[in-house]
Amino acid sequence: MSRFLNERFRTIEEYTPGEQPQNMHEFVKLNTNESPFPPSPGVIAAVNGAEAEKLRLYCDPDCKVLISKMAKLYGVGQENIFLSNGSDDILNFIFMIFCDDGVVYPEISYGFYKVYAELHGVKDIKVPLKKDFSLDPADYCGAGKTVVIANPNAPTGRAIGLDEIEKILKSNPDNLVVIDEAYVDFGGESAVKLTKKYENLLVVQTFSKSRSMAGARLGFAVGAAPIIADLTKIKYSTNPYNINRLTQAAACAAIDEDEYYRANAKLIMENREYTSTELQKLGFEVIPSKANFIFAKSDKIDGEELYQLLKEKKILIRHFTIPAISQYNRITIGTRDQMDIFLEAVKEILKRRI
Amino acid sequence: MSRFLNERFRTIEEYTPGEQPQNMHEFVKLNTNESPFPPSPGVIAAVNGAEAEKLRLYCDPDCKVLISKMAKLYGVGQENIFLSNGSDDILNFIFMIFCDDGVVYPEISYGFYKVYAELHGVKDIKVPLKKDFSLDPADYCGAGKTVVIANPNAPTGRAIGLDEIEKILKSNPDNLVVIDEAYVDFGGESAVKLTKKYENLLVVQTFSKSRSMAGARLGFAVGAAPIIADLTKIKYSTNPYNINRLTQAAACAAIDEDEYYRANAKLIMENREYTSTELQKLGFEVIPSKANFIFAKSDKIDGEELYQLLKEKKILIRHFTIPAISQYNRITIGTRDQMDIFLEAVKEILKRRI
Repeated sequence: MSRFLNERFRTIEEYTPGEQPQNMHEFVKLNTNESPFPPSPGVIAAVNGAEAEKLRLYCDPDCKVLISKMAKLYGVGQENIFLSNGSDDILNFIFMIFCDDGVVYPEISYGFYKVYAELHGVKDIKVPLKKDFSLDPADYCGAGKTVVIANPNAPTGRAIGLDEIEKILKSNPDNLVVIDEAYVDFGGESAVKLTKKYENLLVVQTFSKSRSMAGARLGFAVGAAPIIADLTKIKYSTNPYNINRLTQAAACAAIDEDEYYRANAKLIMENREYTSTELQKLGFEVIPSKANFIFAKSDKIDGEELYQLLKEKKILIRHFTIPAISQYNRITIGTRDQMDIFLEAVKEILKRRI
Repeated sequence: MSRFLNERFRTIEEYTPGEQPQNMHEFVKLNTNESPFPPSPGVIAAVNGAEAEKLRLYCDPDCKVLISKMAKLYGVGQENIFLSNGSDDILNFIFMIFCDDGVVYPEISYGFYKVYAELHGVKDIKVPLKKDFSLDPADYCGAGKTVVIANPNAPTGRAIGLDEIEKILKSNPDNLVVIDEAYVDFGGESAVKLTKKYENLLVVQTFSKSRSMAGARLGFAVGAAPIIADLTKIKYSTNPYNINRLTQAAACAAIDEDEYYRANAKLIMENREYTSTELQKLGFEVIPSKANFIFAKSDKIDGEELYQLLKEKKILIRHFTIPAISQYNRITIGTRDQMDIFLEAVKEILKRRI
């Protein structure tokens, strides 16, 4: 830490991303919820096409072409869409500019929420989940604060229905309700359609998961025009060009090939059900998931030990040291082959312990 | 504006980027200080290569490979380099986390400084330049605040020497001095070498100008390890993955082909001297520039009128409505052909007025 750092940032704790070993290609990588499938052919063609020459020119800060395509796909107006450098970037803005009254979010959820709250000096209330990791909408009704809910939630994978989200929206007419839908394309119900009915709703999504573009950096938010205008103003007050040319071109191509990504999401869902069933056969407790990962534990082996033993076998899953969930591991759903390698390794580890 | 926006952001004014007309290719574009030259062959090969398939995976948030290459090129340690999504992103962080005591910068300089100061509630002192737009280092000595100086300055193009920067550094031992070197590769003297001697110095540069990568988004800062650690912590508390895979690959290739970019910078400098001389022949006052643009005015024609008439001829330059500089225009230096088209158009415009 330098002696020039502002007082209030001296004690903050940054986010710890999932590990990315240098020799990553040697691993079956089931630790950061990436897609096992490459981007669609059009995306690869767009990147490998002529755009590289144009890198000398600034990208369009308004992302006009991309926004118009997305508005069409999601059935909303162009004034209802905000784009930025990943959904993290958008969540950061939300905690920065919409949380004068404080914020409320589930105690077990995306780890970045508490980092943002601390960074921006926002008073946060962390609401415990029920024992089975399900979320009680009543806990968020009449909150009097900005509500942030990941749906499906991470790292549990549990989802709530739109009827429950509507209850939260109706009971918080004077506060923003943010639904973080990073994982919604794997079986969850998107609240995007509710943005027309509730002007206190902001839905955040990403191209990092179902659209196989974690390495391209693109997140988006859908909501009423005034909220989108606020976000746009803050982007133009910090870093207007933050979505680069290649990402804009790639994302346009991805929108054009939406079917490809839906088919991939379907495969992930099938592999998720398969993996869940197999783990249950091995005695695991698996939380019902609507995401591209599952959250599971076994009474037969300590959570961290399983993570470590799998890592020795060059299989990476995500372990959290937070006591309430330290017996669980979050396993990203990959291809059927990857899941079979994972399941085989788990079987071997359990067998050796008998 | 939504009713959810925090009180303190309600009155801020965002930055206005240089105009980017939809039919941009019809224009000779001399308005946003981009390079007229494409990225080097290796950059194009890197982008058009196999990286697109890997977009499904997160990029390396530490940018290890790129940082090690840059440390070697700039002769500093890896712990002395910070990378982020464009130099704007870095400047935003600087105003956010290093300005408890306020900030001082030239009244006429990069327009984003005042946006950042307002956004982060930083008390800013704007020091007038001398009448010829030169900067008096004495104005920044013993400032008792964070000092931010663009060198060369924008939109004037004027540069100060390292001896003058050292005076400012020595007289502000307890405050950070930020030298924004976006345009340094076109004849300015870089303060990077001073970062070893002064631990209160932070130098900010970009790949957007001399490295022909405005559309890729990459900025970097060089300074003492504790300052770099602070910046890294804030990046990991906002958006750790903000430099995407393609940009990291492209930038690595650009570092490997540094000679290409130096040769381009030399051409730009030659074209700058040529354009300055020709404009002076036409009666223009041209501020001596060390940047890839010149700042010029003529008693024969109003600044905004010249800008408008050139725009009608499909030539874009940058005009600022700020009264103190409204008679001037900032003209990006392009290829010799582009500058000849520009000069010919100026001649015609002036002729028609006689």
